Amino acid sequence: MNKNKNIEMANERPLILITNDDGITAPGIRNLISVMNEIGDVWVVAPDKGQSGMGHAITVNSTLHVDEVRIDDGPQKEYSCSGTPADCVKIAISELLPKKPDLCVSGINHGSNSAINVIYSGTMSAAVEAGIEGVPAIGFSLLDYSWDADFEMCKEFVKNITLNVLNKKLPEGVVLNVNIPKLKKEEVKGVKICRQAHGNWKEDFDKRVSPQGENYYWLTGKFENLDHGEDTDLWALENGYVSVVPVQFDLTAHHYIQKLNSWDL
Amino acid sequence: MNKNKNIEMANERPLILITNDDGITAPGIRNLISVMNEIGDVWVVAPDKGQSGMGHAITVNSTLHVDEVRIDDGPQKEYSCSGTPADCVKIAISELLPKKPDLCVSGINHGSNSAINVIYSGTMSAAVEAGIEGVPAIGFSLLDYSWDADFEMCKEFVKNITLNVLNKKLPEGVVLNVNIPKLKKEEVKGVKICRQAHGNWKEDFDKRVSPQGENYYWLTGKFENLDHGEDTDLWALENGYVSVVPVQFDLTAHHYIQKLNSWDL
Repeated sequence: MNKNKNIEMANERPLILITNDDGITAPGIRNLISVMNEIGDVWVVAPDKGQSGMGHAITVNSTLHVDEVRIDDGPQKEYSCSGTPADCVKIAISELLPKKPDLCVSGINHGSNSAINVIYSGTMSAAVEAGIEGVPAIGFSLLDYSWDADFEMCKEFVKNITLNVLNKKLPEGVVLNVNIPKLKKEEVKGVKICRQAHGNWKEDFDKRVSPQGENYYWLTGKFENLDHGEDTDLWALENGYVSVVPVQFDLTAHHYIQKLNSWDL
Repeated sequence: MNKNKNIEMANERPLILITNDDGITAPGIRNLISVMNEIGDVWVVAPDKGQSGMGHAITVNSTLHVDEVRIDDGPQKEYSCSGTPADCVKIAISELLPKKPDLCVSGINHGSNSAINVIYSGTMSAAVEAGIEGVPAIGFSLLDYSWDADFEMCKEFVKNITLNVLNKKLPEGVVLNVNIPKLKKEEVKGVKICRQAHGNWKEDFDKRVSPQGENYYWLTGKFENLDHGEDTDLWALENGYVSVVPVQFDLTAHHYIQKLNSWDL
């Protein structure tokens, strides 16, 4: 079985679905496309605008629009979609791609998706959506929000992790959350397998008054690391490593089931 | 410590934050408010419109608007918010409430949030957001999408589960996902602690052509239960029980960390 699979892999380029949450024209996804073109046949189905912070939102009460587009040179086929990252994955697999993809990669996100940010992340929700549909998936993020971030330094890590996933497979129910520190390539100490750090955002709403005299708010805040472990993604990133967290979408707190059974419900 | 806590509970009514994803005027939340008014001091901060399928989306690139409103009689204080369910919880805790709430309840959702639906659910993302901020939280859903669903039959279950959470506490990092079957109250067999069933949606995009000749899509589909276990929320609901799943937001697939360490990364 494995042997056949290897032969098949050798003969046939994998079909790779690419999406993101910063929109189809973002430098992060353009760099991801260029890496994936070296590995397989690439189909891009990505949001037509930025969708940061969309979490696992899907479009259930309005319509979705899809356009075939050409953003730059290259062999990839590309579609822009009016929906969320999770919508892009759903419509790609169900409607647009010629067959179920061998892999879905999402990103490269402009900014971190480490720690609890995995929950709010459109990048990771796309990877999770692919995982739910039985497609091996990886979300990539670079800890640099700027539009002209140095994605070049990410490419070798992205390629190596992707080839590992294609060769070694991921078990059902697990996708990868990869974060890359904002460093020169030669400064990166290596790749660390991690758990999600425990922490949260301390919100600080910026309250303003409109020209019409109405109050409104901007959500701001700063992240608070509540975790002193040295096996977390935050620790790895702060210490110069690329972090890889295996992420699951069975949210059951299995360890608490027995205790709940002692309640009087 | 526990003793002091019990005395405090006896003297002081708990501060309860209520939100939902169907919007502040939905019958589900109105019924939830009436139950919670019997238990504590209620503050409602809920979306000004339906936000179904919003997952854990937050509003990072636009402004939030909040209005104090009065929807019906009762002692509760109410605010409608232009944001998502997760936004409502953030702004409630950070800006609107007089102190950190003792409990956050979300719902009662019009429709199921069992199995993988927990991922797409605005109702549950509000509960998870409260959990992230250290507030004990429960999401309630009734398996009936209709606006005139029988929420009356839910009330005793909602009240009993809520009192259990207030008295027995939940550990850090765990919130509850409660689903109630569409049955007469006397037909319900009881309450079962469950795990999240394994299954997914088989999408079926309904492709149409606009009057202007452009293609567009509606997301439709049907849920496919891939889980034959009798300890799942789907099994419980199909067999006449209220399902209670403890939900966590550490998404790390801890069981796979050792295996990943054997990869060549």
